[in-house]
Amino acid sequence: MTFTERLRQSQEDHNSLLCIGLDPDPAKLPRPLQGKDDGVLAFNRGIIEATKDVTCSYKLNLAFFEALGERGWHILRETLALIPREIITIADGKRGDIGNSSAMYARSIMNDLHFDAATVHPYMGLDSVEPFARNPEQGVFVLALTSNPGAKDFQYLKIGGTPLYEHVARRVKKWNTADNLGLVVGATRPAQLKQIRRITPRLPLLIPGIGAQGGDLRKAVQHGCDATGALALLTAARSILYASAGEDFADAACTAAHALRDEINRYRETYFG
Amino acid sequence: MTFTERLRQSQEDHNSLLCIGLDPDPAKLPRPLQGKDDGVLAFNRGIIEATKDVTCSYKLNLAFFEALGERGWHILRETLALIPREIITIADGKRGDIGNSSAMYARSIMNDLHFDAATVHPYMGLDSVEPFARNPEQGVFVLALTSNPGAKDFQYLKIGGTPLYEHVARRVKKWNTADNLGLVVGATRPAQLKQIRRITPRLPLLIPGIGAQGGDLRKAVQHGCDATGALALLTAARSILYASAGEDFADAACTAAHALRDEINRYRETYFG
Repeated sequence: MTFTERLRQSQEDHNSLLCIGLDPDPAKLPRPLQGKDDGVLAFNRGIIEATKDVTCSYKLNLAFFEALGERGWHILRETLALIPREIITIADGKRGDIGNSSAMYARSIMNDLHFDAATVHPYMGLDSVEPFARNPEQGVFVLALTSNPGAKDFQYLKIGGTPLYEHVARRVKKWNTADNLGLVVGATRPAQLKQIRRITPRLPLLIPGIGAQGGDLRKAVQHGCDATGALALLTAARSILYASAGEDFADAACTAAHALRDEINRYRETYFG
Repeated sequence: MTFTERLRQSQEDHNSLLCIGLDPDPAKLPRPLQGKDDGVLAFNRGIIEATKDVTCSYKLNLAFFEALGERGWHILRETLALIPREIITIADGKRGDIGNSSAMYARSIMNDLHFDAATVHPYMGLDSVEPFARNPEQGVFVLALTSNPGAKDFQYLKIGGTPLYEHVARRVKKWNTADNLGLVVGATRPAQLKQIRRITPRLPLLIPGIGAQGGDLRKAVQHGCDATGALALLTAARSILYASAGEDFADAACTAAHALRDEINRYRETYFG
């Protein structure tokens, strides 16, 4: 199966378009885990156990693991081992370098750690993306329009009347000969999300920015899904991970994830039912 | 001192604009070190010992360390400890993420590992760059025009007649209120390097692509330096690291580095003497 087929399968199996972002911040761990040597791993284990039935994907933010140094790579590996194989794992590392360096990053992320997918920067072009996409079963999400304030600095610049992020979307669509490329499009930009979905009706879209960042979930589902009501990855991290700071953090995450999954499915029913 | 002042000082002290890229590829180690547990670290030690008198900076390509997994982070730390404090260390990781994630990367690279500078992607804008630049003594090199084939995919796109890389250069110049920002401009693009130096007469420019990538060294010096013949970082990796595959690898690296430093200085004399 290609990556896109695998993603669709995982979404069907879990009846879910929810992607949970694992951004484990030691400073925000629940009180019972704070200051403990294995606190971050225990936290990840609690979150995964509590949410694995309602998510089609986990997105691991490499920044939060790297911030833990050598130990972080160990925790990253251990965390991956806790995730059931049929759930799509995404390395959110936003890499991108000249060919031989990108190949080194890809070796680590796609071969050694064996993530199902990775996020990459478009700025350095095809030879910076290609090393991540060599196996059609593994996917690459290229940044198109991001959810942060700085997205306005360059991504909206117009080239012959067309914004840069749209050029990126069209180019990635063209590169997608193996059915394993997708785009990152922030939920904080619903009008642009609609436009990008129109341009790329069949690409997987990784959509961060719901939850803590305040994106409109209804519009993200309406505009982010393909014609079958799938292939959007609605991504939340902080609103699930830190739903409670107490001993009940896993229960609270479970409740928050269920509620989000169900809300997404209600909108799917409304627009694609 | 600001980062730019520190870089200028290091260039004066070593009478050198040479920056050596440490991209240690286990598959390319000299024969006597191949397959050894501490081969990569021994290789880095040999290269640093042999070249530290003629370089103002080492650029550590994080991709090559990450490819070694947990052990890679250990080797990265040990390698940094081998570099004399007055030589500028650059983490070439090309990161860039939303504010809170970039802050995590910056914590690791700028605070924990304590690199003097880092490379970052411009695509996500100011809040993705700013966390790396909080300490004026530490620098950030933002990708403007890269040395790889894929640079043509997006960096040359014209916005109102002006290419994207030039927009990036102008924006970074504006952001540079603390005298610690610079740009990455490939030596493989001499005409564009000239244009970027004209736009940003006082920014440090990190210039990869001489050596194995085939950039024109004379033009890189002529167009990359500021008016005083400094603040260009002419960066070579493979042509120095792998000058010999035998036991004499360090001697060969020493010879190659001296020759390159001297050639750069001859061009400085010609154009800025």
